[in-house]
Amino acid sequence: MSFSAVEVIATKRDGGVLSDEAITWVLDAYQRGDVAEEQMSALLMAIYFQGLSREELNVWTDRMIASGDRLDLSGLSRPSVDKHSTGGVGDKISLILAPLVAACGAAVPQLSGRGLGHTGGTLDKLEAIPGWRATLTNEEVVAQLEDIGAVICAAGEGLAPVDRRLYALRDVTSTVESIPLISSSIMSKKIAEGTSALVLDVKFGTGAFIKEFVRAEELAHTMVRLGIQHGVKTVAQLTPMSTPLGRAVGNALEVTESVDVLRGGGPSDVRELTLELARLMLDLVGIDVDPATKLDDGSAYETYRAMITAQGGDVDAELPVAAVREVVVATRAGFVERVDALRVGVAAWRLGAGRARKEDSVSAAAGVLCLVREHERVEAGQPLFELHADDQAHLDVGTDAIADAVVISDHDAPSRGTSERTIVRE
Amino acid sequence: MSFSAVEVIATKRDGGVLSDEAITWVLDAYQRGDVAEEQMSALLMAIYFQGLSREELNVWTDRMIASGDRLDLSGLSRPSVDKHSTGGVGDKISLILAPLVAACGAAVPQLSGRGLGHTGGTLDKLEAIPGWRATLTNEEVVAQLEDIGAVICAAGEGLAPVDRRLYALRDVTSTVESIPLISSSIMSKKIAEGTSALVLDVKFGTGAFIKEFVRAEELAHTMVRLGIQHGVKTVAQLTPMSTPLGRAVGNALEVTESVDVLRGGGPSDVRELTLELARLMLDLVGIDVDPATKLDDGSAYETYRAMITAQGGDVDAELPVAAVREVVVATRAGFVERVDALRVGVAAWRLGAGRARKEDSVSAAAGVLCLVREHERVEAGQPLFELHADDQAHLDVGTDAIADAVVISDHDAPSRGTSERTIVRE
Repeated sequence: MSFSAVEVIATKRDGGVLSDEAITWVLDAYQRGDVAEEQMSALLMAIYFQGLSREELNVWTDRMIASGDRLDLSGLSRPSVDKHSTGGVGDKISLILAPLVAACGAAVPQLSGRGLGHTGGTLDKLEAIPGWRATLTNEEVVAQLEDIGAVICAAGEGLAPVDRRLYALRDVTSTVESIPLISSSIMSKKIAEGTSALVLDVKFGTGAFIKEFVRAEELAHTMVRLGIQHGVKTVAQLTPMSTPLGRAVGNALEVTESVDVLRGGGPSDVRELTLELARLMLDLVGIDVDPATKLDDGSAYETYRAMITAQGGDVDAELPVAAVREVVVATRAGFVERVDALRVGVAAWRLGAGRARKEDSVSAAAGVLCLVREHERVEAGQPLFELHADDQAHLDVGTDAIADAVVISDHDAPSRGTSERTIVRE
Repeated sequence: MSFSAVEVIATKRDGGVLSDEAITWVLDAYQRGDVAEEQMSALLMAIYFQGLSREELNVWTDRMIASGDRLDLSGLSRPSVDKHSTGGVGDKISLILAPLVAACGAAVPQLSGRGLGHTGGTLDKLEAIPGWRATLTNEEVVAQLEDIGAVICAAGEGLAPVDRRLYALRDVTSTVESIPLISSSIMSKKIAEGTSALVLDVKFGTGAFIKEFVRAEELAHTMVRLGIQHGVKTVAQLTPMSTPLGRAVGNALEVTESVDVLRGGGPSDVRELTLELARLMLDLVGIDVDPATKLDDGSAYETYRAMITAQGGDVDAELPVAAVREVVVATRAGFVERVDALRVGVAAWRLGAGRARKEDSVSAAAGVLCLVREHERVEAGQPLFELHADDQAHLDVGTDAIADAVVISDHDAPSRGTSERTIVRE
């Protein structure tokens, strides 16, 4: 069957439904170079406006998976289960969750990306550990999953390579925020990675990429459906992201906090969310173990040490420390009404912890420690944040960026109801 | 002021209004190569969906004009006035109109393009004349306007060069059919060409690019406003295009028919539309001459001969003749209810008269002669079309394409009311 890019774009532009053959043709032709970047970006913008039907999205995702390798984890002696988060400020859950769930008996293939914008990336965080390497071969991934049960590494270039190109194209053409395009991008990589089960942590709120609950819910439903249609047991949890998760925001700072949680301590919100997601993961693969016991008996931490060591990381080495620090204090007494995730995330980014473009490098030491939580009583002059940076210039822009991140009121505001969770199943 | 393409695209995508500075920046940066083709195509698709405000469109058109040269016709001893048609099947009006209006005392700078798809291009038609060349320097254009009063030639590459790139980009990204993009493309070239007045012949109906009357009217209003805002006296006429104009469709065939009209004969619909447009043009520049007299006294034809000769054309040479012909006959008796412009245009294109891509060459001899008109009584076996081609292969696909172009009924259908004209002024 013969297609033309101009006709495929026009069909979607006019709100029509693309046939399976048309979608297959356009993505294959794009991979071959027969559909040009400017044609694909026009198609992506048309999809932004007109959407994709379930069937279109299913075929679109199929082709992204088929554009590259697909890992085979069926030979493992443990059941495989993964987690994906749509990204939050201070979200270091993956670092704790992967070894924790592995310690409970599952295999966790966390093939991850790097951070962009105000939310950090899991790989950037682990690269704060001296010697740790993010790149493994497919064979190394499978062997480590069998031996240790947990891998956190860079998704290989062979997985969904068309998604890699589409992601870069969407980034420069303002076609990122589209539910079908987000869904197919996330799910094609996770399905290609070979996991048998998947828990999605979909964030909403002021600090998330998707602010509105209903849009986050739509994204969750779309991804759960895609996973199940491709044979992956998938559930999603909708998690508020309006205030930073834990105290630490920044690469080395978050590794330290993760180790605290793995050793049975750490901030309670981080511990609780980790345990919730762990229970969902274990439930999907039928492992009846209480994950809290594995944090408290030290076995999750042991698995973490083995996982980091297997990838060259020196778990006992001191992590990079900031050259300059600044403490931001409360200008008045009162109750902390808000610690704004977006502002804290942007401040950490400006301090050097994040990148504006994917070619940028990140600072291991830079970041923010949040010293107060919402609803806490503070006095004038009490420290609110400790800012960390590699040099004074970064410290100065970060200090500017964190202004107004905390709102202090005379009376304790009622809770904004941000603690409830919603679970999305098919 | 600093802008980013990603932000400009996102603003338009979300229905926002782009500032003058943002539009200026994005078109200038595109011209410099700092905004990539894939970013511009995403912006064009966002404009397709969200439109441009009057002010945005005005600035957008300004920058297209400012991207290149602007001819100065103010030194001419005659007032300048041009016509632009949005394209129809068998529309050879320019060939007649330019010398006719020149014979009445105006200067007509017809800087034209080539045909694409099912409607022919004025330059393609004139290139059927041995020796005629489409390319003139700006100096030659001005000199010929002063001497003869009429020029039909290719728009120089220096006129609105950004439009040239945008036009090519829109062609491959399905972003052609957008009123602000069509308007700015047409008007930037016409304004840059330096004419003091302009008549727009905006087609609607089954054989036009724009089918619906209301959309054609919106396009006409938008272009008239743009012209006036840029100091060009502009009016538009909305003209139905559901049946071919005249009998001849094809390059040499249309030149022959144009000469018939210039010599006082030819099909009445071609003569009438030419005279209507001529009267609008002469009215705009205040010339009180009845153009019909210039067709009938031979002076329009003399001006035509001078215009063609000045550009190297041999007016007395025989035009290329088709190697193969086929007559299509009526399969039943009755009244001709419809001679479908789109089907006839597509058939002429397939016979070789048109091009699918701008790199393609066209046949001078190929085309269709329409031997019956709507409402005419025909007998079974009576010839309906004469098809002309350079070889049998083209003749065969053309014959297939013209099937069903004529609908014959038992009773004469009431007129579809396609003869009324609407004039659009500011």
